[in-house]
Amino acid sequence: MAHSPAVTLLGYLAATLTTLSFFPQAIKILRSGDTSAISLRMYLLLSVGIACWGVYGFIIHDGPVMVANAITLLPTLVVLQRKITQMLHNRQSRRNPAG
Amino acid sequence: MAHSPAVTLLGYLAATLTTLSFFPQAIKILRSGDTSAISLRMYLLLSVGIACWGVYGFIIHDGPVMVANAITLLPTLVVLQRKITQMLHNRQSRRNPAG
Repeated sequence: MAHSPAVTLLGYLAATLTTLSFFPQAIKILRSGDTSAISLRMYLLLSVGIACWGVYGFIIHDGPVMVANAITLLPTLVVLQRKITQMLHNRQSRRNPAG
Repeated sequence: MAHSPAVTLLGYLAATLTTLSFFPQAIKILRSGDTSAISLRMYLLLSVGIACWGVYGFIIHDGPVMVANAITLLPTLVVLQRKITQMLHNRQSRRNPAG
């Protein structure tokens, strides 16, 4: 279905904003190393959800859905990886407190 | 365009996962009050982006796009509000340190 250029532009603006929004969080965490306030459940659900969107876009041959979700998956997985690493590290620290 | 039931189901699964994923983060922050590791830029871009998606869904009369984004906007705004409140509070504390 074709929409007016303004409406199509609004759609692209929305897609660009939500796709880009995940990068500042990944950058902040890579810089600070602090993931304490980050929800593990959020990034688990989000990563699986975005992967599903990507596969869905691939199956229905929808380029924008596939590309936008492939891009979004990158910062999301960075945050998830750091969160899990910090949780495992904290658990180990509690078991073997260094002095 | 109609897809096979399995593909449609995958799309709904993706939409459900990414929509629900934002709630655990909002709940975690409401409970802990800690937003230090949360990126202000992420939640600013995300909130505006989700609002654009909602308006886009409204204009093109796409119910799922409208509803999914209206639901997602709620936890996103909660996180954004808490982040801004904590930043303003921290700024004020630095100006008027209470002993």
